Amino acid sequence: MKPDMERIEQHASFGGRQEVWRHHSRALGCAMKFGIYLPAAALGGQSCPVLYWLSGLTCTEQNFITKAGAQAHAARHGLIVVAPDTSPRGDDVADDPAYDLGQGAGFYLDATQAPWAQHYRMQDYVARELPALVEQHFPAGAARSIAGHSMGGHGALVTALKNPGRYRSVSAFAPIVAPTRVPWGEKAFTAYLGQERQAWRAWDACELMATAQERLPLLIDQGEADEFLANQLRPELLQAACKAANYPLTLRLQPGHGHSYYFIASFLAEHFAHHAAALVDDRSGKG
Amino acid sequence: MKPDMERIEQHASFGGRQEVWRHHSRALGCAMKFGIYLPAAALGGQSCPVLYWLSGLTCTEQNFITKAGAQAHAARHGLIVVAPDTSPRGDDVADDPAYDLGQGAGFYLDATQAPWAQHYRMQDYVARELPALVEQHFPAGAARSIAGHSMGGHGALVTALKNPGRYRSVSAFAPIVAPTRVPWGEKAFTAYLGQERQAWRAWDACELMATAQERLPLLIDQGEADEFLANQLRPELLQAACKAANYPLTLRLQPGHGHSYYFIASFLAEHFAHHAAALVDDRSGKG
Repeated sequence: MKPDMERIEQHASFGGRQEVWRHHSRALGCAMKFGIYLPAAALGGQSCPVLYWLSGLTCTEQNFITKAGAQAHAARHGLIVVAPDTSPRGDDVADDPAYDLGQGAGFYLDATQAPWAQHYRMQDYVARELPALVEQHFPAGAARSIAGHSMGGHGALVTALKNPGRYRSVSAFAPIVAPTRVPWGEKAFTAYLGQERQAWRAWDACELMATAQERLPLLIDQGEADEFLANQLRPELLQAACKAANYPLTLRLQPGHGHSYYFIASFLAEHFAHHAAALVDDRSGKG
Repeated sequence: MKPDMERIEQHASFGGRQEVWRHHSRALGCAMKFGIYLPAAALGGQSCPVLYWLSGLTCTEQNFITKAGAQAHAARHGLIVVAPDTSPRGDDVADDPAYDLGQGAGFYLDATQAPWAQHYRMQDYVARELPALVEQHFPAGAARSIAGHSMGGHGALVTALKNPGRYRSVSAFAPIVAPTRVPWGEKAFTAYLGQERQAWRAWDACELMATAQERLPLLIDQGEADEFLANQLRPELLQAACKAANYPLTLRLQPGHGHSYYFIASFLAEHFAHHAAALVDDRSGKG
């Protein structure tokens, strides 16, 4: 059926199906899991646009598919949703006891430093290997969008900015927008990319904004009661970078909201509408 | 503020707030946790109807509040939703290594047999102590409905049938409808209620249906791909009991669906609409 790929979960869900697959990743050199939601149209063989979701620190492919309520929205808009794990995994993959480095904390970059460089090539995985796999094995069209949460919001922004022409829209919940200037990013980038800060700039959304080659619809929600807001997330830095680059940004501060999936679930319908406007309406316009 | 009660979680959610509280239960003789969703109206002090949700085997107060997507529906209809844990808990509470007996498997009954009788009084807790607590400490009106999943579907049916006048509507996902005739129920009832099967009948929805004193709106969804369907759930027994008692039942068999929260999430909007029609529309009619 699908060589080197094994379906390890399948659940009927909102007229479609939530599946989890395991496969060997060439980019990462290990077995990886990803969740994929197939709306009814995709189960019927119809080509559908794809929204990629990148999760945050400590997450696996399970968090988003079990806690966000995403399937209702994906079904409504006819979108395939792909949610990969957040790092390479396995006993022979480098790790660190801290929650914010190593397994569960891949930061969606391609590491250059030992011992990380061998497996930590998450950018290669999420931007190239995984889309190719999805488009080969599922009824997925070439229209892609990307979104994420926290470390995964950083991943969504950086992946969209580094790969012009590959995504139609981008959004994030509580993203790490300036990893070169906050503790989570400084720790991870020192390990994965080395002491030389000049090399970090290629993985920082605020830095990449200055040379952005396209203008994608960009929506960001940030909880005002998020415990990481002032120290790790600092959305005002992205706001300034977007203003300097004349990049249109919709940044919404949400009173009372924290950093959890309760926050994501509360506004996810609007993120799906944001992406569907770029993915589905555009496709209809061509039909 | 609220003596003997401690709020251990609070999350902004869909314009309202998801909270988790810990308190000492007199009925159970131990500390208990419950989730409570307060819609915007309740946060503003307005009295709201309450939907009680009873979870299934192995669950805590967390499963429903993190996986079902219930908050969106509760917010839309202006309902408070209360989701208790599934049994008494603690080192001094009787337990069993099996997943289907003891802690996490209270079956919403009042046990009569040692060692269970001391703490396992879940019916007293969910039908009396918990509603009194909720109505004392939160802006909860006296309009109540009740729903549940699997063991909690049994709990919802039995609690509604045993307490005429206390609930406006009832619904269940994949309920255990005839515990006296299926392995899960036979094992639990033998332990909690003893060998004498006559005593079991007071805790079996199919048995209670024959003497039901009121007719509540009753909605049941059952997945056709549920692994427990033929052996443990047997909805046809409830269908026959309802027919014999002339009790109106809406039983829907859902093709392809299993026993998980993916199934619950897919149809939960319709269960909320079912309860809101009994709780909110009725209230509006009086206003």
